[in-house]
Amino acid sequence: MTEHRQAETDAPEDKLQLSQQDMEVIGRAIDTGDSATLDAMLLPVHAADIADLIEQLPAPRRRQFLDLYSGEMDGEILTEIDESIREEVLEQLPPEVVAEAVREMDSDDVVDLIEDLEEPEKQAILAALDDSDRAAVEQSLTYPEYSAGRLMQSEVVTAPEHWTVGETIDFLRQEDWLPDQFYHVVLVDPRRHPKGYVTLGKLLASRRNMPLREITEDSFRTISARQDEGDVAHAFNKYHLISAPVVDDHDRLVGIITIDDAMSVLDEEHEEDILRLAGVGDDSSISDTIMETARQRVPWLAINIGTALMAASVIALFEGAISKLVALAVLMPIVASMGGNAGTQTLTVAVRGLATRSLTRANTMRVVRREMAVGLLNGTLFGLTMGLVTYAWFRDPALSLVIGMAMIVNLFVAALGGILIPLGLEKAGADPALASGTFVTTVTDVVGFFTFLGLASVILL
Amino acid sequence: MTEHRQAETDAPEDKLQLSQQDMEVIGRAIDTGDSATLDAMLLPVHAADIADLIEQLPAPRRRQFLDLYSGEMDGEILTEIDESIREEVLEQLPPEVVAEAVREMDSDDVVDLIEDLEEPEKQAILAALDDSDRAAVEQSLTYPEYSAGRLMQSEVVTAPEHWTVGETIDFLRQEDWLPDQFYHVVLVDPRRHPKGYVTLGKLLASRRNMPLREITEDSFRTISARQDEGDVAHAFNKYHLISAPVVDDHDRLVGIITIDDAMSVLDEEHEEDILRLAGVGDDSSISDTIMETARQRVPWLAINIGTALMAASVIALFEGAISKLVALAVLMPIVASMGGNAGTQTLTVAVRGLATRSLTRANTMRVVRREMAVGLLNGTLFGLTMGLVTYAWFRDPALSLVIGMAMIVNLFVAALGGILIPLGLEKAGADPALASGTFVTTVTDVVGFFTFLGLASVILL
Repeated sequence: MTEHRQAETDAPEDKLQLSQQDMEVIGRAIDTGDSATLDAMLLPVHAADIADLIEQLPAPRRRQFLDLYSGEMDGEILTEIDESIREEVLEQLPPEVVAEAVREMDSDDVVDLIEDLEEPEKQAILAALDDSDRAAVEQSLTYPEYSAGRLMQSEVVTAPEHWTVGETIDFLRQEDWLPDQFYHVVLVDPRRHPKGYVTLGKLLASRRNMPLREITEDSFRTISARQDEGDVAHAFNKYHLISAPVVDDHDRLVGIITIDDAMSVLDEEHEEDILRLAGVGDDSSISDTIMETARQRVPWLAINIGTALMAASVIALFEGAISKLVALAVLMPIVASMGGNAGTQTLTVAVRGLATRSLTRANTMRVVRREMAVGLLNGTLFGLTMGLVTYAWFRDPALSLVIGMAMIVNLFVAALGGILIPLGLEKAGADPALASGTFVTTVTDVVGFFTFLGLASVILL
Repeated sequence: MTEHRQAETDAPEDKLQLSQQDMEVIGRAIDTGDSATLDAMLLPVHAADIADLIEQLPAPRRRQFLDLYSGEMDGEILTEIDESIREEVLEQLPPEVVAEAVREMDSDDVVDLIEDLEEPEKQAILAALDDSDRAAVEQSLTYPEYSAGRLMQSEVVTAPEHWTVGETIDFLRQEDWLPDQFYHVVLVDPRRHPKGYVTLGKLLASRRNMPLREITEDSFRTISARQDEGDVAHAFNKYHLISAPVVDDHDRLVGIITIDDAMSVLDEEHEEDILRLAGVGDDSSISDTIMETARQRVPWLAINIGTALMAASVIALFEGAISKLVALAVLMPIVASMGGNAGTQTLTVAVRGLATRSLTRANTMRVVRREMAVGLLNGTLFGLTMGLVTYAWFRDPALSLVIGMAMIVNLFVAALGGILIPLGLEKAGADPALASGTFVTTVTDVVGFFTFLGLASVILL
């Protein structure tokens, strides 16, 4: 959770978007070093939009901007800044500004900010925190990266399970450390084991003498601090959780995760899946430079050139056949292309099913059988189609037979590869999206060229 | 928002997952018509998991299950059931069970349930509602599909802007229609224009005589009922909203959207993007049958066979060249494949940028220029690589030159197609993910074969 920006007490609605004109005024203010205009322009702007602005500035202007605006940089803006430039921004800001900003942040945001920093920078920020905040952040950092323990905030509002509504409200009124946003009061026993939770709505709507125990939510689940953040995000989405208590290995309450953080994780996981499927580095960002972008794309293109050479060497085996019948060269890319497409379809459904946890051990066999059947069915359909098209084009029934058979084989193999490759990667503990696309199209290219040209050599020549 | 399931007052933690053993007991209970065992087994299970179970049963067993379990079917389970089988389930249940279930639901869930039903079924369900609930649902249905108006629930907790904390708490204690989950009290003026909102946490933590006006959140934004639900979901994610008031064309409060609904929309949008990019029907589901799956995949395979034939006819233009130099047939798929990969990389980044609203009018030109530069840079890198590889393989400097040049051209065209095709689709009001993949690989196949074989004809023969 992130605090909302404290601007003025009777603030107008947030400015929804910086217009082109606004951007020009801001640009001039940066050029002329006019920090008063800059501050005034950005006062009604949401921290997330200020962070966007900082990300979109070219590096030299970003430094000018930060020099001018450093007095106004707060915890929320820092939290919103994309990881790719966060370290650069932190280095640019005066240490006291950073220290002040992190003191305002909830513990989960501090963890997110510092977990990837070098040790000296990390220690400098930790030193700025109160003892109790520092302890909370350090505890979070003991959990593995991408675990619930890293995602949680340690600021949890709890109440003993025997309290009444009145006692709880009195307690809340006298506390001044409450998180900016919270949605539940977690009931705990004397050993801090969570026993249930009460929504603030129920608390407000109930009489003062109502025992908390009687208004707890019936659906209650805790999250282990070691659980993978992706699983946590999917549990929030599936069970409509708003916040969920996090427990340590002894089932003691150590923090709470709120839905907005789960939503960010879900969005990031999706980003990773879609970029990895396409062979793009998953830390790519729209604000990367030309060199960064080119470099990120090289590894998968390099692997692809290797696999394409493999497919080409399969074709080279049949040079004799091709020189006798050039139609083979004309038709062979169709077999490979259809296999690649069918394989990608199956693959994407499998990767998505694994990502949403809907492809489970219980239905894996059914899905594998289904994909094989679909491969045969569509292979037969498009094998027949290509057979007819080839006959119409080349008037050669044997060639039509060859391409039809190759198509059936390749679409079946595509289905098999499309489902088994991501399942195998998942089983091996790797990301099923990573490299799947290249593996599958390599299989379909090699099998497509080999079956088509091989059958042609045997049957036609 | 979905109500939590009312099981017992002191319910144990939800059962986290049905084990294989549980499933066997449930299977036997269905076979023997033992509804007592079924009810007992499913009592501790979350509605979302019961819905999963129903989705995974084959159709005939699903009917048996619904007959046995119909007495326990409630609004929450119905809400969780996937659209693909929802109509079938509704038809199977006794009308009084459906009527009872929809009366428990929040208005947004009723809208979601009935918006795709046939008119008679829709009217039957509307007739089961109270007058005020029905009016709310009918109002929602006047807004376009996939708009904020369809997503919102009409149950909003409001307070006049001049109230104090004490007045608000007294009001909440005497109301009995409060939504099961709410996080804010929306301040409205006498004409129901929203003026700000107060979190329940602040309400609980403040003294009774505190005016609401002084504890409103500083960051406040309303959503127009006509806004696209995808934009709403991204605003929730970007600005960490928990709930946001929805207003009509006259800026009057008509409902509220909560983050869990926004999270579902975000997840569905992801699903659409990834499936559409792969040419899979976006209503596909892991529980589809073989025939449904095969049918969904046919359209894009059919389009692909058309585009592959187009590429093949380009090759056919150069049959003479290939018959003189078979190495051309060996190498040409490499040029096409590298173009397809590079194009897909650019395309995916563009589609993702559009989906997350990070590719905006302000940076489009910069990103287009960047992609073109990256295409040239990586084209040159891999053009040189392939030139060297080809020389090592065939010892033919002219052939090496030809493939190097073709590679540069094709990777540049791939970048151009990868960015301009999704931008063009978006501009034309179409989904940028839809068909982009096929368009881009068609372009890279055709251009790849044509440049390579064309240059070869001119230079080598």
